Amino acid sequence: MTSLEASRLFEELRNRRPLVHHITNYVTVNDCANIAICTGAAPVMADAIEEMDDMVSIAGALVLNIGTLNDRLVKSMLAAGRRANELGIPVIVDPVGAGATPYRTETVNQLLNDLDVAVLKGNAGEIGIMAGSDAKVVGVDSHGVKGDPVEICSEYAERLGLTVVMTAPEDIISDGKDTYVVSNGHPMMELVSGTGCMASTVVGAFNAISKDRALASASALVAMGLAGEKAALEAKGPMSFRTKLFDSMYNMTPADVASGAKVRKI
Amino acid sequence: MTSLEASRLFEELRNRRPLVHHITNYVTVNDCANIAICTGAAPVMADAIEEMDDMVSIAGALVLNIGTLNDRLVKSMLAAGRRANELGIPVIVDPVGAGATPYRTETVNQLLNDLDVAVLKGNAGEIGIMAGSDAKVVGVDSHGVKGDPVEICSEYAERLGLTVVMTAPEDIISDGKDTYVVSNGHPMMELVSGTGCMASTVVGAFNAISKDRALASASALVAMGLAGEKAALEAKGPMSFRTKLFDSMYNMTPADVASGAKVRKI
Amino acid sequence: MTSLEASRLFEELRNRRPLVHHITNYVTVNDCANIAICTGAAPVMADAIEEMDDMVSIAGALVLNIGTLNDRLVKSMLAAGRRANELGIPVIVDPVGAGATPYRTETVNQLLNDLDVAVLKGNAGEIGIMAGSDAKVVGVDSHGVKGDPVEICSEYAERLGLTVVMTAPEDIISDGKDTYVVSNGHPMMELVSGTGCMASTVVGAFNAISKDRALASASALVAMGLAGEKAALEAKGPMSFRTKLFDSMYNMTPADVASGAKVRKI
Repeated sequence: MTSLEASRLFEELRNRRPLVHHITNYVTVNDCANIAICTGAAPVMADAIEEMDDMVSIAGALVLNIGTLNDRLVKSMLAAGRRANELGIPVIVDPVGAGATPYRTETVNQLLNDLDVAVLKGNAGEIGIMAGSDAKVVGVDSHGVKGDPVEICSEYAERLGLTVVMTAPEDIISDGKDTYVVSNGHPMMELVSGTGCMASTVVGAFNAISKDRALASASALVAMGLAGEKAALEAKGPMSFRTKLFDSMYNMTPADVASGAKVRKI
Repeated sequence: MTSLEASRLFEELRNRRPLVHHITNYVTVNDCANIAICTGAAPVMADAIEEMDDMVSIAGALVLNIGTLNDRLVKSMLAAGRRANELGIPVIVDPVGAGATPYRTETVNQLLNDLDVAVLKGNAGEIGIMAGSDAKVVGVDSHGVKGDPVEICSEYAERLGLTVVMTAPEDIISDGKDTYVVSNGHPMMELVSGTGCMASTVVGAFNAISKDRALASASALVAMGLAGEKAALEAKGPMSFRTKLFDSMYNMTPADVASGAKVRKI
Repeated sequence: MTSLEASRLFEELRNRRPLVHHITNYVTVNDCANIAICTGAAPVMADAIEEMDDMVSIAGALVLNIGTLNDRLVKSMLAAGRRANELGIPVIVDPVGAGATPYRTETVNQLLNDLDVAVLKGNAGEIGIMAGSDAKVVGVDSHGVKGDPVEICSEYAERLGLTVVMTAPEDIISDGKDTYVVSNGHPMMELVSGTGCMASTVVGAFNAISKDRALASASALVAMGLAGEKAALEAKGPMSFRTKLFDSMYNMTPADVASGAKVRKI
């Protein structure tokens, strides 16, 4: 059962405390650092080209998030990604705002072309745009995707040879062969800047534990979604929700994951 | 009555969810993103020159905040501002720390000269310095302004042909013709880094809704100040105050604005 | 008694509200700004080379934190540090992640060689690496130091002619002559990204008040540790702990410092 496998991965994550290296945006970077800690991982944020090789070498996963990309960061992302590929460290790409500007779409394509990306994780609009479906992204918000999301993710994953994660009320995770649907989560997560970025951090942490990219990514979204569900129980608004989101992730046990997971393999 | 107009603008903001594009500092950028969401707007933070034209084009307002300015950001601000001017998108400038260093004062003057700025929003010291009054700014803190603030704002607004917003226990908002005084707010707002930046975000969001710059800006400060008043009721210190500030803004209704507004047109 | 001296320094800090200029990382910069305010200081974050001389000139202390260093920031750090040295403003260096990559270790050495640094403040691994002991730093986490930490700090402080602060469950502060041990603090501080950076901010604030670097730094760690102890009493997880950490620092009185200090001079 997937929920038990997710629980076991989470337990192993807690025991191994993998280091997750981020090159990410300056809007939600603090949230990514703290959710990494609360999940049980160790965050590193560093983006100078001078230390990319050295910093990546000690990481269990590399998360590349283009939220506030610029020319200097993209160069560092490519350098870090190449080193990660040499060492077999999984590279997670979060294509924030892909489709909103050509610069973003092109940068994501460059990352996908030049690197061996393990997981591409975005919202419905971002994944839809990248997959070539009829999606719409305004700013960094997604306005959904046309067509069957399972089919889009599965086909795109197979075409690119990686795992695609599309977050939505029902998250789709597919490596082209195995496909998971995760229904954990809460609408309040949409009201906090950075929950998508944090989810990518958690996906990175789980992928540092297992090479089954689809299972690891689905397990990560189960944990993140469960933390959101628990947080919503006592929240009085988006910011108290955020506080409780971190606390819930920290207080979550592998048993909570096993019993609370809403995940199915299709 | 201004309080009813503010309430109506707030209701329209909630319905329209305008996108507010920020080029802002890395200290309080997360707060700006979250207060945008809690107010009812959609935040975008992007600063690469490569995507300025594209990103600005989809925005309802552009907020330029010089908190941690540098040469690269100033170029992006100018590019974004020019594009916003072409498209009639209002440009809000927050001259953080103007007067503390010549670099800041000169940059603000460059923005004011090269762009058609809709609203210049700063604290008493910053506006005083820019207006040429005898004000003092140490670091990014204001130490007040000499002279009659209403006169300073009104004359400066007329001279520049824009709306001047001077935040203080009594906020002054003037477009040179219409002048508003807003007394909403709470002293605890001074104890949280970024409340000034957040106010600029909210000013941006309201200016995306109405072309009456003075009324929109006054309405924004009413909403922000009211959120502060409500937050202070339960706060145990600056950080729990901050949490409640966001939650209060999110939970605020147009009716709350109508009944709680302390604004007068003079 | 050191606890009374710490209390007096804290009282003076509250009265004088020193300005602390930071060149720091974009991960925890907001926390540094807010802990400065809660401690009683005024934060400035600015890193453009164009305004370094002007901004440093009005500061009571300069904090250089290499958390997300890059070539541009290092140049600004050197410029700011030289100006601070000319004016007798204390320079605090936080060597985040020193030892994790050669780029970090070399940058710290450059800062130590080119500037007259007043306080070098890091965790056990960072200080151990810099002091040439057998320490291990993975990412930005320390994995302890071999040998007697008091001896390492005291010898390294004497060799460099500055004050060394090594944070750990028992913090060691030494200027080579006077050595203090501070046992305030709480394990939950390790679960929040940025408590180390915040401690450097507080060390900066106290060093703006007294030229007795070791005493000022020990007093800072007493205050920070006490805030952590108080916060832990009600926390439900790392993020509610963080909220209370700021509130506790803000609500702390000089009398609390006098009665709660766990500091001894050895």
